[in-house]
Amino acid sequence: MAIELYWGSGSPFAWRVMLTLEVKGLAYESKLLEFSKGDHKTAAYLQLNPRGKVPTLKDDAFVVYESLAIMSYLDRKYPAPPLFGVTAEETGLIWQSISESESYFASAGDKVVRPLFFAKGLDKVDEINQAAEIIRQELKALDARLATRNWLVGETISAADIAIFPLIQLILRAAGKDAAQPFALKWLPLAQYYPHIAKWCERIEALPNYQRTFPPHWKT
Amino acid sequence: MAIELYWGSGSPFAWRVMLTLEVKGLAYESKLLEFSKGDHKTAAYLQLNPRGKVPTLKDDAFVVYESLAIMSYLDRKYPAPPLFGVTAEETGLIWQSISESESYFASAGDKVVRPLFFAKGLDKVDEINQAAEIIRQELKALDARLATRNWLVGETISAADIAIFPLIQLILRAAGKDAAQPFALKWLPLAQYYPHIAKWCERIEALPNYQRTFPPHWKT
Repeated sequence: MAIELYWGSGSPFAWRVMLTLEVKGLAYESKLLEFSKGDHKTAAYLQLNPRGKVPTLKDDAFVVYESLAIMSYLDRKYPAPPLFGVTAEETGLIWQSISESESYFASAGDKVVRPLFFAKGLDKVDEINQAAEIIRQELKALDARLATRNWLVGETISAADIAIFPLIQLILRAAGKDAAQPFALKWLPLAQYYPHIAKWCERIEALPNYQRTFPPHWKT
Repeated sequence: MAIELYWGSGSPFAWRVMLTLEVKGLAYESKLLEFSKGDHKTAAYLQLNPRGKVPTLKDDAFVVYESLAIMSYLDRKYPAPPLFGVTAEETGLIWQSISESESYFASAGDKVVRPLFFAKGLDKVDEINQAAEIIRQELKALDARLATRNWLVGETISAADIAIFPLIQLILRAAGKDAAQPFALKWLPLAQYYPHIAKWCERIEALPNYQRTFPPHWKT
């Protein structure tokens, strides 16, 4: 098979690439790395990705890593359907949406998700509450945007939707952990606090082969 | 004039867009915002960019913000010369390089630059030293890459060069501050520690109209 994807279960960045591959209907060989076994730190893998992170994509002899880079590559190499816009204006707004999710949502998410998942640094209560508030503001803005449209930019799914969906799934999973109970996160139930985001999630979950992209260890 | 650029002196993100405009030879109306006067928080500006950040670009009626989004828009709208690659592989590697600079270089830079510029949080010595070490590693990797090539990806300047150059200039300026002296940053002199990066900087500084992009308040 031409395309190989190295990924890890639960990595939102790997999830982005899997959604991209499915939306484009591209077949690929799945190379699931087990972080607990150190699969991402073997000499063979570091040869492909010197940072030892996921995802990494190999397409015949070509290797590329970093999720947004892989998505950009795939979109250029396999243009149908276009995920980074048809017009220059769409391209700009899609990257604007992605940049905002990277700059504000993802960095705040990091400060909450790590403590909640690994029950480490939970004593930094102020920092967690502050990050949780930033996330609420970002979710509120997304919800307002999705009140009047099905997708974040344009009339169809784009890289903007694909880039942020796994980040949202990750913080919601963190919010369901026992460690989250003392915090008034107010992210869940999603349909109550952010009904338009909830509907948008359902649209993504209804994509063909969505289930193939869902983190395997989240199913149990 | 069709294109208006809202920017602030010393913002590496605004600098990226100015370099992009100059490399593409696009005329634009400069809208310099004075942060000290709160120009970026006026109702009129927040209408263009609700986050009150720079840069923001207006092209006739179209408005886009976030530096990488503006660069992507400009490249799609005004394709010559192409800054995001000609082949899919180049596109992938350019975004890989940009993503790496955002994920590792910029976030570490933030932890060092703010304390040094504003002499605030200088007591977080361990955090600063840790971030400074990450930056040294990133600079080392860039230097090794530039040992055998003129530009980060491909045979000509690309968005990868343009995205990271202002970040490097910013940390070097921080390294020259009095507040930096107690720290063994080992970034300066650049030509001594990272000779290939220094040569690459000279190539960028030799671009036509480079001086127009240089932060005005850095000149004095």
